[in-house]
Amino acid sequence: MSGRSVPLEIGTAVGAADEHHVQVRGLDLVDDLIGELTYTEVALLAVTGRRPTPAETKVVDAVLVSLLDHGLTPSALAARLTFWSAPEAIQGAVAAGLLGAGSVLLGSMEGCGRLLTDLADDLADGVATGAEARDAVDTRLRAIVDAGGRIPGLGHSLHRDGDPRAGKLLAVARDQGVAARHVEHLELVVERAAALTGKALPLNATGAAAALLLEVGVPWRLHRGFALMSRTAGLVAHVGEELESPIAPAVRAALRAASRIEPEV
Amino acid sequence: MSGRSVPLEIGTAVGAADEHHVQVRGLDLVDDLIGELTYTEVALLAVTGRRPTPAETKVVDAVLVSLLDHGLTPSALAARLTFWSAPEAIQGAVAAGLLGAGSVLLGSMEGCGRLLTDLADDLADGVATGAEARDAVDTRLRAIVDAGGRIPGLGHSLHRDGDPRAGKLLAVARDQGVAARHVEHLELVVERAAALTGKALPLNATGAAAALLLEVGVPWRLHRGFALMSRTAGLVAHVGEELESPIAPAVRAALRAASRIEPEV
Amino acid sequence: MSGRSVPLEIGTAVGAADEHHVQVRGLDLVDDLIGELTYTEVALLAVTGRRPTPAETKVVDAVLVSLLDHGLTPSALAARLTFWSAPEAIQGAVAAGLLGAGSVLLGSMEGCGRLLTDLADDLADGVATGAEARDAVDTRLRAIVDAGGRIPGLGHSLHRDGDPRAGKLLAVARDQGVAARHVEHLELVVERAAALTGKALPLNATGAAAALLLEVGVPWRLHRGFALMSRTAGLVAHVGEELESPIAPAVRAALRAASRIEPEV
Amino acid sequence: MSGRSVPLEIGTAVGAADEHHVQVRGLDLVDDLIGELTYTEVALLAVTGRRPTPAETKVVDAVLVSLLDHGLTPSALAARLTFWSAPEAIQGAVAAGLLGAGSVLLGSMEGCGRLLTDLADDLADGVATGAEARDAVDTRLRAIVDAGGRIPGLGHSLHRDGDPRAGKLLAVARDQGVAARHVEHLELVVERAAALTGKALPLNATGAAAALLLEVGVPWRLHRGFALMSRTAGLVAHVGEELESPIAPAVRAALRAASRIEPEV
Repeated sequence: MSGRSVPLEIGTAVGAADEHHVQVRGLDLVDDLIGELTYTEVALLAVTGRRPTPAETKVVDAVLVSLLDHGLTPSALAARLTFWSAPEAIQGAVAAGLLGAGSVLLGSMEGCGRLLTDLADDLADGVATGAEARDAVDTRLRAIVDAGGRIPGLGHSLHRDGDPRAGKLLAVARDQGVAARHVEHLELVVERAAALTGKALPLNATGAAAALLLEVGVPWRLHRGFALMSRTAGLVAHVGEELESPIAPAVRAALRAASRIEPEV
Repeated sequence: MSGRSVPLEIGTAVGAADEHHVQVRGLDLVDDLIGELTYTEVALLAVTGRRPTPAETKVVDAVLVSLLDHGLTPSALAARLTFWSAPEAIQGAVAAGLLGAGSVLLGSMEGCGRLLTDLADDLADGVATGAEARDAVDTRLRAIVDAGGRIPGLGHSLHRDGDPRAGKLLAVARDQGVAARHVEHLELVVERAAALTGKALPLNATGAAAALLLEVGVPWRLHRGFALMSRTAGLVAHVGEELESPIAPAVRAALRAASRIEPEV
Repeated sequence: MSGRSVPLEIGTAVGAADEHHVQVRGLDLVDDLIGELTYTEVALLAVTGRRPTPAETKVVDAVLVSLLDHGLTPSALAARLTFWSAPEAIQGAVAAGLLGAGSVLLGSMEGCGRLLTDLADDLADGVATGAEARDAVDTRLRAIVDAGGRIPGLGHSLHRDGDPRAGKLLAVARDQGVAARHVEHLELVVERAAALTGKALPLNATGAAAALLLEVGVPWRLHRGFALMSRTAGLVAHVGEELESPIAPAVRAALRAASRIEPEV
Repeated sequence: MSGRSVPLEIGTAVGAADEHHVQVRGLDLVDDLIGELTYTEVALLAVTGRRPTPAETKVVDAVLVSLLDHGLTPSALAARLTFWSAPEAIQGAVAAGLLGAGSVLLGSMEGCGRLLTDLADDLADGVATGAEARDAVDTRLRAIVDAGGRIPGLGHSLHRDGDPRAGKLLAVARDQGVAARHVEHLELVVERAAALTGKALPLNATGAAAALLLEVGVPWRLHRGFALMSRTAGLVAHVGEELESPIAPAVRAALRAASRIEPEV
């Protein structure tokens, strides 16, 4: 099969390389980045195209740390089971775990990021008074609730009285001087959601994380991507434990017991 | 379908949670980690079970930064094409990109990590003289070459005269006082590989990264996992660019041109 | 890490096994299925819970065949690039290819299946007259168009004058006596979409496939699953060709050329 | 970001398309394949490049049916957990399930296919006598056992007295006149493995499947690909059941119970 020569017009501004250099966003990887910046700094540089400030880096480190692990989650189990049956390909195990970062679990980050982005657009012209901001939030929340949806970023099935990570994330943002209008809008969302639904719906970690990522300039469409960076580390830790103390055999035995052929009566 | 109740005996030492707390390796996520440690520190804590020193953290940051992006790689393209056709699921796009971190590309890290681990075992008893170490390296390298394999961690198809990232990684490790026997063995591998094969086989970034990860206590089986953490950030950056300046349509057009039905002659 | 014993209540009606038997949907795999039924028959049995008729099988075979390959698609390329860099894990290459079966490409099947399911619900009570059916279709299509969406199952970026697979799929369904209300509704959708938008929007293969799957009892939420079965075979064929005549090196070279460091002027 | 125009030389013999036609291996999809051939026939056509005989098709259908489901396997669970948390992306759930088809579970097919291919090479010249064949098998098996490996295709952790699927697969191949030297070599492998190890190591389904795929011309490197086609159908069935009767919540509750924070004593 000979193939054909076809023209292809493509390019990227993320990174570049030649025989002697590698660049990320125009900075020299060797001279400017390796040993000079942290993972979090270069991740932000690659995603946003500009070098983050120390305060922004601290806030994003807090976000990445907050979602890194949550014990034996379904996605940690998916990664461990996959690693056990395909130990030659740790990338497959991690990928299987990441594929669970969908609309139900970590994806709420994306939903909250979108809501806050919409609110920022709603309130972009001039300084909104408290009443104007409240009305904008009410309109957005009512639209979600009327459509039968859940307000993203609020509530948690385990941390029912409040997600302990959320408050700490906002505190870090305030300490670093990074909390601004998105955090303000988020607090209004929490307040109005309680008023509107009559239920206590405390802020969760993904909601707080979304506000912080917006404050540092990460668009909502990429919020779930930061959850993926974070979880990758947690999944590698779980795969490492599976190497030493596998849980897959016990899970497999339980699954077999649960799907045994029922004796006819 | 009613289901059955089966007993399941499992547990993890990576993380834990209850209504009011989340722990990673026994440390409180809120009090001890969020806002206190960086992503890289908590990733190392989760994987190794102990809090890294500042020097170790700096070395692992260097490793994570060095592999974060390399321009338009095949795996960046796989992620971008996947995102273009399934934009509702960024986790799928990132997973598709990570699945390319196999034995040919980033997997060489694992191979080099294994070789250095074997050498450390070979030379574990007492202080090896230079000659003993050289013999151990020669034996291992000859076994690889005789089996038709490539010496892992050496050579690069683009950086033919030397991978600029490799030297910087070793320099960071030395600066931080983290370079010890694994770096020493790696340098011997480079020297003896040239002697044995008669070819210049300069150290590449994955080889240097493997030595540094061993120095900080990450077992070779998890080295590729650190490449996954690193690449996840780069892939998110590429997906972000695909949102703004998609290359998938041009690639698709080129693929269609290349697989058009040939007119019969 | 000792672990704890926790109770787990689960079960499945899909399949079961013990030391001497395997069952799928209550039928014995060895006595009733292997060598007795085809892949397509057992796939339908597993998914729907009942053994399909010969006519239903013929229709689903047509659906599976119609989407099996379409030359060098982006997902075929993603699979081939992944295989080239991770040849030890063909499952990763196929998974990377399948992850592209999203809302933009094969996912339109799901959208069309949902539209036809909604229409069947709208028109469920009694026999709809032509006018009633037309009104129901117009209402649904207008809602989609007003929300800025594209009518699923219609149009194709390559087959602009009409997707040759679509007509053949409907013909097979008619020949087999399987075409009923869903096919009828689909034809009305095609007719009314043209009237409403003033554009020729010919039926495509995923639209026809959705109608046929509904006729045989596959709910729309699983339609994309049949596209996955189909594409898996095509992706394996592409991986097989990559083993013999790899295209990944040429793609990689082009990508490198496109992301080389620009010389400063 | 403007991009550059780079030349790309690629092509494929698997499939092709233009505005009015789609071809698979040079046959017209609409005229020759849809409604004319089954999924299994076109899958084989795409992979091997030639149209299979009815007997070959029957044998491959038996292979695909035999591996389609095995109750609640770890990979079925991984798919179901992934679907539960990312229901918008069924392709991710199926991909997560397929990623478990590695060296430990379905991958043994590949190992057995490789062993049988090696034996066919060993014995390629002229007609081997029984003694020659036995010696060739003994040499190959001893090499595996001496290297600490397990003989692929033999033994099963649940079906300890014999995998009921294996015998039926061989029977189908014989009935169809497809069983030839690879089946013969496989039977010799079973016989000699028992003699060499002193243990009863009955043939399992993946071993029999490998022999049958070789008989119809599928190279061993693609055997796992047929397991993927087969499992995709089973995974779609499990995802469909998860939609109706989810098991993920019970699994998640058990995981949470197992990773709760231990009260200090």
